[in-house]
Amino acid sequence: MLLHGVGVGRGLSVGSTLRMPEPLPEPADEISQASPAEEFARVKAALAHVAADLEARGEKAGGEAQDVLGAQALMAQDPTLVDDIEERLANHKSADRAVFEAFANFRDLLLQMGGYMAERATDLDDVSQRIIASLRGVAAPGVPESDTPFILVAHDLAPADTALLDLAKVIGLITREGGPTSHTAILARSKSIPAIVGVEGAEGLPDGTLVILDAGAGTVRTAPSTSEIEQANIRIAERLAVASAPLTPGALADGTLVPLLANLGSADGAEEALAAGAEGVGLFRTEFLFLDATEAPSVETQLREYERMLRAFAGKKVVVRVLDAGADKPLSFLNDEKEENPALGLRGIRALRASEQILTDQLAALALAESAVNDSASPGERVELWVMAPMIADSDDTEYFVSLAREAGIRVAGVMAEVPSSALVADQIFETADFVSIGTNDLTQYTLAADRLLGSVANLQDPWHPAVLRLVGMLGRAGRNAGKPVGVCGEAAADPALAVVLVGLGVTTLSMTPAALADVRAELARHTLAEAQELARAAIAATSAERARTAVLRLSAANAVG
Amino acid sequence: MLLHGVGVGRGLSVGSTLRMPEPLPEPADEISQASPAEEFARVKAALAHVAADLEARGEKAGGEAQDVLGAQALMAQDPTLVDDIEERLANHKSADRAVFEAFANFRDLLLQMGGYMAERATDLDDVSQRIIASLRGVAAPGVPESDTPFILVAHDLAPADTALLDLAKVIGLITREGGPTSHTAILARSKSIPAIVGVEGAEGLPDGTLVILDAGAGTVRTAPSTSEIEQANIRIAERLAVASAPLTPGALADGTLVPLLANLGSADGAEEALAAGAEGVGLFRTEFLFLDATEAPSVETQLREYERMLRAFAGKKVVVRVLDAGADKPLSFLNDEKEENPALGLRGIRALRASEQILTDQLAALALAESAVNDSASPGERVELWVMAPMIADSDDTEYFVSLAREAGIRVAGVMAEVPSSALVADQIFETADFVSIGTNDLTQYTLAADRLLGSVANLQDPWHPAVLRLVGMLGRAGRNAGKPVGVCGEAAADPALAVVLVGLGVTTLSMTPAALADVRAELARHTLAEAQELARAAIAATSAERARTAVLRLSAANAVG
Repeated sequence: MLLHGVGVGRGLSVGSTLRMPEPLPEPADEISQASPAEEFARVKAALAHVAADLEARGEKAGGEAQDVLGAQALMAQDPTLVDDIEERLANHKSADRAVFEAFANFRDLLLQMGGYMAERATDLDDVSQRIIASLRGVAAPGVPESDTPFILVAHDLAPADTALLDLAKVIGLITREGGPTSHTAILARSKSIPAIVGVEGAEGLPDGTLVILDAGAGTVRTAPSTSEIEQANIRIAERLAVASAPLTPGALADGTLVPLLANLGSADGAEEALAAGAEGVGLFRTEFLFLDATEAPSVETQLREYERMLRAFAGKKVVVRVLDAGADKPLSFLNDEKEENPALGLRGIRALRASEQILTDQLAALALAESAVNDSASPGERVELWVMAPMIADSDDTEYFVSLAREAGIRVAGVMAEVPSSALVADQIFETADFVSIGTNDLTQYTLAADRLLGSVANLQDPWHPAVLRLVGMLGRAGRNAGKPVGVCGEAAADPALAVVLVGLGVTTLSMTPAALADVRAELARHTLAEAQELARAAIAATSAERARTAVLRLSAANAVG
Repeated sequence: MLLHGVGVGRGLSVGSTLRMPEPLPEPADEISQASPAEEFARVKAALAHVAADLEARGEKAGGEAQDVLGAQALMAQDPTLVDDIEERLANHKSADRAVFEAFANFRDLLLQMGGYMAERATDLDDVSQRIIASLRGVAAPGVPESDTPFILVAHDLAPADTALLDLAKVIGLITREGGPTSHTAILARSKSIPAIVGVEGAEGLPDGTLVILDAGAGTVRTAPSTSEIEQANIRIAERLAVASAPLTPGALADGTLVPLLANLGSADGAEEALAAGAEGVGLFRTEFLFLDATEAPSVETQLREYERMLRAFAGKKVVVRVLDAGADKPLSFLNDEKEENPALGLRGIRALRASEQILTDQLAALALAESAVNDSASPGERVELWVMAPMIADSDDTEYFVSLAREAGIRVAGVMAEVPSSALVADQIFETADFVSIGTNDLTQYTLAADRLLGSVANLQDPWHPAVLRLVGMLGRAGRNAGKPVGVCGEAAADPALAVVLVGLGVTTLSMTPAALADVRAELARHTLAEAQELARAAIAATSAERARTAVLRLSAANAVG
């Protein structure tokens, strides 16, 4: 049997499947036979047990996962929730029903708050499930564990699920839901795990099914023949060879340089990026400095972090994006209005224009950091700081940002192209901007008017769509006419076949999660610029994302043979 | 003093201002001196008084306003609310505080439900204010009343406010908030009331200020000189002459025909549209058949309505849009998923693809209605039915819709261009579609990634933006290459100067609220096609919506002089 879905990257895996268990059934709403005091004692024991277990798992996991699990442990002992449970027990609810109701109630409140808080609802569900499982003396549903490597099959993966996964054991991901920009896809890319999302029929795979997962083809083959397994293993070996190839600068077969840069969310990832051969940073996100704060961080705090990051990339280029808040990343001190469609709201540069001090402080800190690093560096060790603003609509936004950046002493100031209008008036934007970096995720979302996080419109959420590629082509042409660089820092740059098409459309640098660098480097080296342009023409002439992808892969294979 | 804002249309008014009163202050939360029973008696009297008053106003207003006011009268006597108030009184709240809290609570519930229900929150606020005013024995805040014509100044206008306005007395509208697609703007256009929205400083205008409101210039002049008033009055007289000009077919000065069509929400508006010289219907919205229903209406019910509407336009063209649900118009039987960004969700053709029976039923009813009307009509009386689908993203959506329409027996099937991708791949869409109609409101919203109903991004919500106009130009070119018509049925078509630009960009028909037909007809007659194309070039070369508008108005004036 052959199941189809959207492949993430070009990975390949052969292995047995293991399913993410379904949630526990909802506890019945019956009068408890035990007394409220007895039930409350049981609940308190379960809460303590689950909190301790989560803490222990967190310590073992470390890093971001530890934060997530620590927060969950706190949820399990939240006094408001405990009071609520006790009150429900007093009304003779059973222990598991009271826990279920109290958590469900709190969950609804979080969902109503929207944005960041709503995304925590899944974490809360997981805690609730663990407590109920503990009360019932059954295993908590949650990520499956195995002593041998396995391919995980799930409805969809929440961040909390993946924080708990022993990724060393997971050699593939198959999900029923999700699109190319879902959390599953982003995780798969950042960890180089072969994955296929949006697979109809995935729920029907029994545990232990032997499958070949081919992300490049977007297929899951069950009951493969011996020769199919052999061929898959040969391709896996070839991919391993690519991954251990020398870390040469990104270039096409004809020598055209295409610098390959890393997307980073903090200075912590610098080492890994450099080890993967990143020639600099193409997107340094600065939200981490602001996210848990009740007010904007001081210039001094920011300066320290920027210096740390710039020093890590001595002698290289670093493109920093100023604060991109709003939409799914609301910040109370920047934008607290409830919006009906936050993705179409006061976000990115719009929110910064409304709170200009935050922007000028950030630009000042960045300029100071550059001086601090470069003033004491030898010429070859100097870092090249570029700064860009998110959600730029047109030349008016561009002029606003670039003039503030110049005043602050930033030498290279550019903009992100995420709003479709920015590509349509790219000629006007390049009159002021020093460079443009394309954020393909948002650009796709707006061009197709399809929420990047909404499953029911996931079929429209594909950067291979010819409409999106035509906008990229406009930006590429405008950049060439202006003699200025055009980068891509969205998920699209991490798809090797699409990366070649982007270069064919005039993109001059590619920035991606470090784990994708090897695949993209290898694919670029297989094509000349003329070939890349030919592939780009085929892609924009196609009438759908899928046909564009198929046309490019077919043509690309033919070129390789020829 | 000269205040600036976004003018709606080109109307002009000279008159005295009158402010929409601010809401009553929040009642203090103090223990009532009266007994709960006494307070409840007072509340019941106030509820009955307000309900009767709303009913009476409704009967006087008639039409849609009566529905709105009738619904408000019901709210004032809703048993759940009355119970809630009584409970609060039992806790020794004062009568006005109890009313305030009970309504506020219900309001929050509505807001949480989102979409249509959330929009009812404003209606509820109005009822609450009326009851509290009645309890206090003060005048209810609400629309001001006057024996003489006045220019209304408001923060913003809710639909409930305008339902209550004696529009015969309102000769102008000035609002602090709102953009070109706000409710105020739409009302102003449909009733031909000169209006300026988004006027900073509007709140500072004392009642009785004599002003000249110039929507074409987007200005409000206070303390005008006698000669300024005289000039304004001359221009008002000229505009009256335009309004009573003969109802000739829409055409440019060189004779190029540009059919002028009407946007209608039901067959009820047919008479008014024909009286204003509509040459057919360019957008017949069919949502009215579905909005208050719990399931889709039967083919028979739909057939009756479509027949009625087609008969009203015997001998003319009628373009029907199939059901456009989702986003701000959710229908429980079509799409009940809670979406984070409904404007980027399962709406339009996407929702219909997920519930295909609704679409095939509607297409069948339309085909039957056309046969029923035309089979018994003389050749000159036959109606020309065109059918189009909303929210088409690309050729895949187009092929899906057009093939279903053909199967149902629809002869002319086209698509709406609202999603930016549709303009970018217009060449591919025209391979299947018989025509395209551009919905400029949504097209602007997505191209600029700015919610059309959100005040904080209203500056980006302008169809004059060169990025939007460039997309219109792509559609115009693709239509010309395919030899197929390209219409515009968004608010942009009702702006006379912009209408000329659209024609210059290749648009072949314009559809608008009937009240705008005279102004647009007059403006088209002032320009040749070559001039319209020159104006279009100036508009798309401008670097902002405002500069595009200014450049076109300036050039247009120069042409008129020449």
